[in-house]
Amino acid sequence: MSGAKEKFDFITFLTDYGLADEFVGVCHGVISTLAPHVRIIDICHEVRPYDTRSGALMLVRAIQYMPPAVHLAVVDPGVGTERKAIAVETDSAYFVGPDNGLLSPAVQMMGGGLRAVEIASPDIVLPRRGGLTFAGRDIFAPAAAALANGTPLEALGPEIPLDSLVPMMVPLPQQGRERIDGEVLWVDRFGNCETNVSPEDMDALGIELGERVKITIGGATYEARWVRAFGDVSPGEVIVIEDHYGLLAVSVNQGNASEQLGLKEGMAVSLLVEREGESGE
Amino acid sequence: MSGAKEKFDFITFLTDYGLADEFVGVCHGVISTLAPHVRIIDICHEVRPYDTRSGALMLVRAIQYMPPAVHLAVVDPGVGTERKAIAVETDSAYFVGPDNGLLSPAVQMMGGGLRAVEIASPDIVLPRRGGLTFAGRDIFAPAAAALANGTPLEALGPEIPLDSLVPMMVPLPQQGRERIDGEVLWVDRFGNCETNVSPEDMDALGIELGERVKITIGGATYEARWVRAFGDVSPGEVIVIEDHYGLLAVSVNQGNASEQLGLKEGMAVSLLVEREGESGE
Amino acid sequence: MSGAKEKFDFITFLTDYGLADEFVGVCHGVISTLAPHVRIIDICHEVRPYDTRSGALMLVRAIQYMPPAVHLAVVDPGVGTERKAIAVETDSAYFVGPDNGLLSPAVQMMGGGLRAVEIASPDIVLPRRGGLTFAGRDIFAPAAAALANGTPLEALGPEIPLDSLVPMMVPLPQQGRERIDGEVLWVDRFGNCETNVSPEDMDALGIELGERVKITIGGATYEARWVRAFGDVSPGEVIVIEDHYGLLAVSVNQGNASEQLGLKEGMAVSLLVEREGESGE
Repeated sequence: MSGAKEKFDFITFLTDYGLADEFVGVCHGVISTLAPHVRIIDICHEVRPYDTRSGALMLVRAIQYMPPAVHLAVVDPGVGTERKAIAVETDSAYFVGPDNGLLSPAVQMMGGGLRAVEIASPDIVLPRRGGLTFAGRDIFAPAAAALANGTPLEALGPEIPLDSLVPMMVPLPQQGRERIDGEVLWVDRFGNCETNVSPEDMDALGIELGERVKITIGGATYEARWVRAFGDVSPGEVIVIEDHYGLLAVSVNQGNASEQLGLKEGMAVSLLVEREGESGE
Repeated sequence: MSGAKEKFDFITFLTDYGLADEFVGVCHGVISTLAPHVRIIDICHEVRPYDTRSGALMLVRAIQYMPPAVHLAVVDPGVGTERKAIAVETDSAYFVGPDNGLLSPAVQMMGGGLRAVEIASPDIVLPRRGGLTFAGRDIFAPAAAALANGTPLEALGPEIPLDSLVPMMVPLPQQGRERIDGEVLWVDRFGNCETNVSPEDMDALGIELGERVKITIGGATYEARWVRAFGDVSPGEVIVIEDHYGLLAVSVNQGNASEQLGLKEGMAVSLLVEREGESGE
Repeated sequence: MSGAKEKFDFITFLTDYGLADEFVGVCHGVISTLAPHVRIIDICHEVRPYDTRSGALMLVRAIQYMPPAVHLAVVDPGVGTERKAIAVETDSAYFVGPDNGLLSPAVQMMGGGLRAVEIASPDIVLPRRGGLTFAGRDIFAPAAAALANGTPLEALGPEIPLDSLVPMMVPLPQQGRERIDGEVLWVDRFGNCETNVSPEDMDALGIELGERVKITIGGATYEARWVRAFGDVSPGEVIVIEDHYGLLAVSVNQGNASEQLGLKEGMAVSLLVEREGESGE
C-alpha cells in the first residue's frame, strides 16, 4: 500500500462465530466505537467451527468481489495457544486474523503479502477483561479498526517475516490417464458439491462438454453428464458443471447432490472417462 | 419515477441464499463496490430454497415499511434456464429480480409497474467467471447498484411489455355458507399460522369477534376462539387472531400452533361456523 | 443525558425474532425510514424465543462494547398483555423495550436509570394495521428512531417512576464452606458453559488457579482443573476457566462441554473443593 496513512471505508468480516450469540455484534460494536466511519460487510459467520480450510476457501472466493477494505477473518482453533495474531499488507488491502493459514490463499490471490506484523501493541489491543481473551473483540477487531483509520501497519506490533506465516494446504486433484481423483471442497446451501477439479483437468482426459463421465464416491458409481447449464438436463439428473468460481461441481438438477449422493466436504470424488462400449456393462 | 436520474440511498435485499455460505456477503460486496454510498437493508435471506410464493408474500409484507429504495429480490428456481432477469419501475421504487412472479405482488402493492426491462446490457452485467452464472452476484446486484446510482432504467437492457411479466398466483379462500376453505400462507418463528382468510370473510359468515369457530385441518377438528389479543385467552388455548398484516392466523397462546396442530405452509385450513347446540356433538 | 436534543448515529438491536422471517428486516426498514442517518448494530436476533433472562444477560455482556447509541431490545413474551413499552434514559444512552426486566441489568451497568417513560404517544407509535400489534415494528423501532433523531424522551409518552420498572432476577451462587452451588447462565456456540460463579468465589473456598476441583452436575461428578488458558491442558480435558466476561465457565479443551456433560442453560452446577487424599477414592 503506497502511502500508509490511507483510510478505508469498509471492513469485511468472516468468522465461525455463528449468529446465535452476540460475538459478531460485539465485534461490530468495537469497530463502530473505534472507527465510526467504517461500514462492515459481513461475508459470512457460519463457517463450520474451527474449520480453517473451509474459511480460507470461502474468503478467497469472496474477496475478489469486495470493495477496497481491511479484511478481518477469524476462524481460530488455536485461541489461547501460541499462534500469532497477524496483520498482512497487500498491494491494495490489509488482512487481519490468526496466523493459521486462514488468510493465506486470499493474500496470495491479492498479489501476495508485502509486509506482516504481529498484533501486539498495547495501544491497539483492548485491555484484558476476563481470563480468556476473546481475540476477535480484543485483538482483531481493534486492529482492523486501527488500519481502517489509517494507522500505519508498523504501529500494530513488531514486523515478522512473510515466509514465517503459516500456509494453507489445499489439496490438488491427482490426474491419471483415464481418471481424476479429486475432493469436495465445499457443499453449498443448495447441495451443489464443488470439487477441486477444473475444466482444464477434464480437457486433459479428453472429455468434452456434453459428454458423459462416471463419478465414483466411496464404493458407488454414478453416471453424469458434463453440462454447461442446469437447463440442459432433466430434473433429477446428476451432472458435472463448472460452477460460479470456475471449478467443477457435482450437482443434481433441481435436487440436492449432497443429500442424494451422500457427499460431504473433504470426501474423495473421482471422475472417470466413460468410453464407448462401456455403457453396456 | 419522474426524473430517471434519481439516486437511491437504500437497496433492500431478500433471497433464499441462506447465511451459511458467502452468497449474501458477496452481493453486498458487489453493491458496495459499484455504489459505495448505498446502505443495504437485508429483509431476509432464509426464504425456503426456490419457494417463490413464500418469497413473494414476504416481500409484499415487508415492502410497505421500507424507505425509498431499489428492491432486490432473488428466489430463482429457474436459474440457468430461459427465465428473464428483469427490472421494473413503479411510481416510487425499482424492483430487480427474476421474472418468475416473485416481484409481482410487491409491484402491485406499490401501484403497479410503469416500465420493465430485461437486464442484459454488457455494461451492467458482470463478465462471466465460471460456467454457471451466479445471477445475484453477476446480474441482479450490479443492476440494483446501477439503478441506485441513478442509471436510467433503459440503460439496463431492452424494454419488455409489462403484460408479459409472469404473475404470482396467490390462492384465494373459498367462501361457503357455513365455512371458509383457506390455506396457510406463512408459519412464523413463533408457530403462528397466517392464512389467506381475512376478518371480512368471517363477517360474511356472520361470525363475530369473541365467538367460537371450528377449525378443520386434514381430518382433525379443533375448537378455537376468534380473539383480538393473545391476552384474551388462557395459555395453551387455540385461537384465531388477526395478525400484523390484517389476515387471520391460527395461533396458540404462549404455544406453537404449527407444531401442536401439525400446520405447515400450503396446507388447507377450513373455518366453520359453530352454531348453538352443536357443541354437544 | 444532559441536553435532551442530542442525536445518535447508532441504534443497537437485540431480539428473539430470529432470521427466518422478515421481522428484523422490517424493523430496519422502519428505522431507516424515520431516521435515515442511523446505522444499526445487530447485537443478536437468536435469543431463545421469549427467554428474557437470556436476552438480558446477552445485552449486559454486549453493551459495554457499543458506541454511544439508543439500545433497542425486544424479547417479549407478554406481547398483547398489559406489560408496558418503555424508554429509559441513562447517563450516556437510551434503552427501549418491553418493561419485563430485559433492559434492567444493562441499565444498571450503565449507571442506572435517570428517567423512564411509557411509549404511548400517537405521534410516535405507528397506526395499527392488523389486529395484533407487531410491537417491534409499530412501537419500539419508531421510539428508538425518534430518540436517535433527538426527540426528547418526554415526547414519547408519560413519565413513569423508575422504581416501578420490572427488575430482572439473576441467580446468585450459594457459597458453602467446601462448595459453591451455581447455575449455568449461558452456553455459547462452542459449548462453553458460563456459570454465575466468579474467580472471587473460588478464592473464598481457598482454591487456587491450577488446582483441581470436582464439578457435580445432576448426579454425575467430574474432575476438572481450573486453568488460565485452553492451551494449559490436553485436548478433551474438562476445565474451569475464567471466560471473556470474568465469570467461570465449564469447558472442554477443543471439545463441547455442553454436549459432553449434558449441560444446558439454567442447570445447577456445583464446584467442590477436592482435598488431598480424596483423589484415591
